[in-house]
Amino acid sequence: MALSKNKIKLYRSLYQKKYRDKENLYLAEGKKNVTEAIQNAPESIIEIICTEDFLHNTAITKGINVEVCNYNTISKISSLSTPQPIIAILQKPGFSNRFSGEVKDLTLVLEDIKDPGNLGTIIRLADWFGVEQVICSENCVDCYNPKVVQASMGSIFRMQLIYTGIASFIHMIREKGIEVYGTSLDGHDIFESEVAFPSVLVMGNESSGLSEEVKKAVTKNLLIPSFSKNNKKSESLNVSTATAIALSEFRRQCSYSK
Amino acid sequence: MALSKNKIKLYRSLYQKKYRDKENLYLAEGKKNVTEAIQNAPESIIEIICTEDFLHNTAITKGINVEVCNYNTISKISSLSTPQPIIAILQKPGFSNRFSGEVKDLTLVLEDIKDPGNLGTIIRLADWFGVEQVICSENCVDCYNPKVVQASMGSIFRMQLIYTGIASFIHMIREKGIEVYGTSLDGHDIFESEVAFPSVLVMGNESSGLSEEVKKAVTKNLLIPSFSKNNKKSESLNVSTATAIALSEFRRQCSYSK
Repeated sequence: MALSKNKIKLYRSLYQKKYRDKENLYLAEGKKNVTEAIQNAPESIIEIICTEDFLHNTAITKGINVEVCNYNTISKISSLSTPQPIIAILQKPGFSNRFSGEVKDLTLVLEDIKDPGNLGTIIRLADWFGVEQVICSENCVDCYNPKVVQASMGSIFRMQLIYTGIASFIHMIREKGIEVYGTSLDGHDIFESEVAFPSVLVMGNESSGLSEEVKKAVTKNLLIPSFSKNNKKSESLNVSTATAIALSEFRRQCSYSK
Repeated sequence: MALSKNKIKLYRSLYQKKYRDKENLYLAEGKKNVTEAIQNAPESIIEIICTEDFLHNTAITKGINVEVCNYNTISKISSLSTPQPIIAILQKPGFSNRFSGEVKDLTLVLEDIKDPGNLGTIIRLADWFGVEQVICSENCVDCYNPKVVQASMGSIFRMQLIYTGIASFIHMIREKGIEVYGTSLDGHDIFESEVAFPSVLVMGNESSGLSEEVKKAVTKNLLIPSFSKNNKKSESLNVSTATAIALSEFRRQCSYSK
């Protein structure tokens, strides 16, 4: 009925990247995320920690370790301001950093996404729009950051995420004859561009967008046009909403007759 | 060189809705938001509070009251976990709750959006996509909540926002012969639907979507299709990203030849 002090300390440390890397573990918090972990990555679950109430309230598959403890103990581990009464401890998947060399259909590349909420939301979008893999630059926030896991709403358990140097990734992809599309404020109107498939879409950093190096490396830069009637219009879209629009337009173009 | 204790207390209280309503004031924090306030709503600014450094660092129009004080004092007023060295105190615009009765082009209606970050992001999107007014149900989070102002990135100063009963609003609009589109998981594929203009788009609450009452009141419910190849696919999109996709598709349909 109790977690050892050492375990609490270990699990609590997982909100820091260096300990996630050292231990090869990460956390998923709350009923929604833990349920998704059980459904999508049961083999990765080291154990589930929850209150007595939650044990009866959540469908936990046989064979998964469960440690029942009080809410106070869970609060000590949680990274959330309002801790949830259930947390899963998971092993990080082995595929990180390994790229198969194949690009089928639609691949998403992210350059230096810093905000964990944005990365989580983008992973959720990628899942919705059938993206097969998300390639992150090495300066992107760690996808096992608890806030990323939280915002992905379970999609992190279904998505292949690879951290690598993206400029060389783009060059390698282009050598295979595959189109790589960037997004930038001086690009071509996405609604007037014809997108080829398979293809790769590259989204840039929250404040600076794509680096000059990446902008030059891509086949074509696309722009999401503004329809503001205001002279004093807004200058940009948030990167998650821009990714939503671009992925949606890519899918519309490849799936519906024009 | 110093703000009175009473003023600090008053401004600090503005992170609570009841004091914003009582005083008819709200806050905009950080250089980006304050600069947007100066450019878009200078007549609403009661005063700007900033550090000496920021005074020389920000283009403040003549005639605007500025109170220079130290960072410590500003921190007492700020609602942010990392306070910014510049804050504007603004008067709320008078148009709230008043609807002109006219719907031109594209109007956005929000039912019970609870998360301030989502509302701010949606206001920013509405600005980008040339939405003329945003109608919020009375249970939406207050648009003058500091986190909404923050996430809107200045768009709040350019957007007409009205809080009202949305079911009766939708009935009134439909009596004028204008189409009202809802979004729901059992709607018609948005990419296979033809959107009429002028039109009204209704987006629902983060977890429960549109209420049954609103779903029945609209002309047509639209669905953003998932392209996930996964059986265990994600169940929904975040409301900000769904709004981004819907507004973008509405604009594409009305502005580009098919």
